[in-house]
Amino acid sequence: MNDLATGALRAGPALRIDADRLWRSLMDLAQIGATPLGGVRRITLTDLDRQGRDCVVRWFEAAGLAVRVDAIGNIFGRRAGRDPGRAPVVAGSHIDTQPSGGKFDGNYGVLAGLEVVRTLDERGIRTEAPLEVAVWTNEEGTRFTPVMMGSGVFAGVFPLEHALARTDVEGKTVGDELRRIGYAGSAPTGTPVGAYFEAHIEQGPILEDTGNTIGVVTGALGQRWYDVTVTGMNAHAGPTPMALRRDALLAAAQLVVEVNRIAHGEAPHGRGTVGYMQVAPNSRNVVPGEVRFAVDFRHATDAGLEAMERALRAACARVGAACRVTVALEEVVYFPPCRFDADCVAAVRAGAAALAHRHMEIVSGAGHDAVYVARVAPTAMIFVPCKGGISHNEIEDALPAHLAAGCDVLLHAMLARAGVAA
Amino acid sequence: MNDLATGALRAGPALRIDADRLWRSLMDLAQIGATPLGGVRRITLTDLDRQGRDCVVRWFEAAGLAVRVDAIGNIFGRRAGRDPGRAPVVAGSHIDTQPSGGKFDGNYGVLAGLEVVRTLDERGIRTEAPLEVAVWTNEEGTRFTPVMMGSGVFAGVFPLEHALARTDVEGKTVGDELRRIGYAGSAPTGTPVGAYFEAHIEQGPILEDTGNTIGVVTGALGQRWYDVTVTGMNAHAGPTPMALRRDALLAAAQLVVEVNRIAHGEAPHGRGTVGYMQVAPNSRNVVPGEVRFAVDFRHATDAGLEAMERALRAACARVGAACRVTVALEEVVYFPPCRFDADCVAAVRAGAAALAHRHMEIVSGAGHDAVYVARVAPTAMIFVPCKGGISHNEIEDALPAHLAAGCDVLLHAMLARAGVAA
Repeated sequence: MNDLATGALRAGPALRIDADRLWRSLMDLAQIGATPLGGVRRITLTDLDRQGRDCVVRWFEAAGLAVRVDAIGNIFGRRAGRDPGRAPVVAGSHIDTQPSGGKFDGNYGVLAGLEVVRTLDERGIRTEAPLEVAVWTNEEGTRFTPVMMGSGVFAGVFPLEHALARTDVEGKTVGDELRRIGYAGSAPTGTPVGAYFEAHIEQGPILEDTGNTIGVVTGALGQRWYDVTVTGMNAHAGPTPMALRRDALLAAAQLVVEVNRIAHGEAPHGRGTVGYMQVAPNSRNVVPGEVRFAVDFRHATDAGLEAMERALRAACARVGAACRVTVALEEVVYFPPCRFDADCVAAVRAGAAALAHRHMEIVSGAGHDAVYVARVAPTAMIFVPCKGGISHNEIEDALPAHLAAGCDVLLHAMLARAGVAA
Repeated sequence: MNDLATGALRAGPALRIDADRLWRSLMDLAQIGATPLGGVRRITLTDLDRQGRDCVVRWFEAAGLAVRVDAIGNIFGRRAGRDPGRAPVVAGSHIDTQPSGGKFDGNYGVLAGLEVVRTLDERGIRTEAPLEVAVWTNEEGTRFTPVMMGSGVFAGVFPLEHALARTDVEGKTVGDELRRIGYAGSAPTGTPVGAYFEAHIEQGPILEDTGNTIGVVTGALGQRWYDVTVTGMNAHAGPTPMALRRDALLAAAQLVVEVNRIAHGEAPHGRGTVGYMQVAPNSRNVVPGEVRFAVDFRHATDAGLEAMERALRAACARVGAACRVTVALEEVVYFPPCRFDADCVAAVRAGAAALAHRHMEIVSGAGHDAVYVARVAPTAMIFVPCKGGISHNEIEDALPAHLAAGCDVLLHAMLARAGVAA
């Protein structure tokens, strides 16, 4: 460390985080809830989640951060800035995982934020604005819905009381489980944020496919999810001639093809997925009388989502009539498309350029805490590649060099927004 | 009764069974295992099956039939003929039901045979050949496979020892359960049959759709069943662009459409059904990585079945390549097409014509005990309409007048084959 240099000089483009320390932290946290296949199962508000939170809080405190917890269990570690009147520049994500999750989804964004703080501490660099590292409660939504619960409450998307009253399959509430694990905090939620950056693995194949190291995330796709119920008539597969059938699965199959056709017609940002289907009675020699399936449409614009829905409704009517079945379509989830803050996105782009990482603009296909935080603060995200685009899977993997590159970009983007004190 | 008339005169075209007595017997037997929706749940070799068998045996004995039980639990009630050297003319079917079965499937064929005997007794008509009423064990195959077990053993389709060793989901064997309910008999199986007639509800909509009362069943469709496994790659529905997906459900959906297209191209006897499908991981925002489904192909000829299989294999290759997934096709069941005996079919047709019932030739789409018995004896079947073509369902229904008409045809067909003693 050069005590004589100004912070600004020390914080110049040569400044890098400690790639090994970041990797070790990721691997250490991944021990809590580690699965045999190398993944992590650390479901929100379980004992393992408590252990993970306790570990991160110890690390925060060891790095000199002032830790506070709000009423929905979001954890904030604050590093003072020169100007205590400025709203903090925040890095964050989540540490809860899918039931068969990986080491990087969420955890990377939290520990990258911590690594930024550790790096600044090591170099004796003070920022003008305070910095914070945030850990949002229950991003995954696998035990309690809605997903992105902590950031949703923080951003006022839904009320705290609603979130606290949500129950898991055993009837336990979020509020009780927060108290049980010691993370029902008393700090205020929804406090001002000067800027928010979230580093995350891409969870898709685009960066890998295009050979880029950094995704400059300009926003997130809007989502419309539907439940579809096709009702025909059970019939014995042998004695029932083809022409007299009312086959719910044949109709559903045609609609699966339509969902994909509609999404292909909205390239590059349109997505259409049927991921869930239940056939009744589901017996090999019975023409199915009922099929339920889910449609997940995503698009960068509301107009695109609306066009996809119109096309789906038309397909349901056409296929229903042709197959002599009824098709009921119900929207169950809507997330509007999100555009991140132009200045924050520019800070990410400038960081990637200054560090000479191959980068591209990308739109997040998945929801993230950043999408909710973006409703109340200037926000952007940084994507790094993950192997094969695979996520929500124990074999989720990412290269240390890519994770370090994303963390370096985070560091420089945060410094650009927070300002370096002389 | 006219004691002076010969049997042949008394057995002339005016002879009718007692429609009310047949209906009462059907309703009485349906009390054993009755379900709230008016159906029957009397699964093979359960206590309820024993109660059903005991009831039928009591009725057989009350009608003067000599009852014997073979080693696979098939029950035969024998009415002596004038010529004890002739092989019996047999009517039969089964009394086990689907888990949510109806009152008529199987039960009708047994009780129609009993009603023929009761009618002949009442009228003092003796036949040249003996008559028998058969109750075949485990036609439905819902607890123990293979289906049509009793008639299969009787006809030598598979060995007795194989059938006795089959287990249910709890590990209980057919042999132990037969002993437990008292129906492990010692009478020889596979005894000679002069002719076999089985009356049955159609289990399809064709007779109702065409306004016919009697189906003169000329044979049964051959069947080829397949298990299909489509393997792609799980992927997050949001971040994964359409073009980079390997969506197993999209491929499976295209194949469901193909199965139906192939069957429509083999009208009127081709059938193609996907009744079973399981999607993995079956989560609404995950592109499915694996789909398993079953294909049920039926056709009146082996050449037709083979053409359908060729078309399916070609579709699997084409769709697999287009969707970048692997498709594995495994045949799991094969029943050859069956043509019933021309003389027995003629006896059914003549009976329907003599009784002036609207009738048509029909090919059974479903398997029946008659299909196995046809391998060792001249055989035909008589179909009567069932409401909406619905079967294997608690709401299965049939009109008393149609059931009586079918039983009248059975009576005259049996008399034609057995001969009436003077």
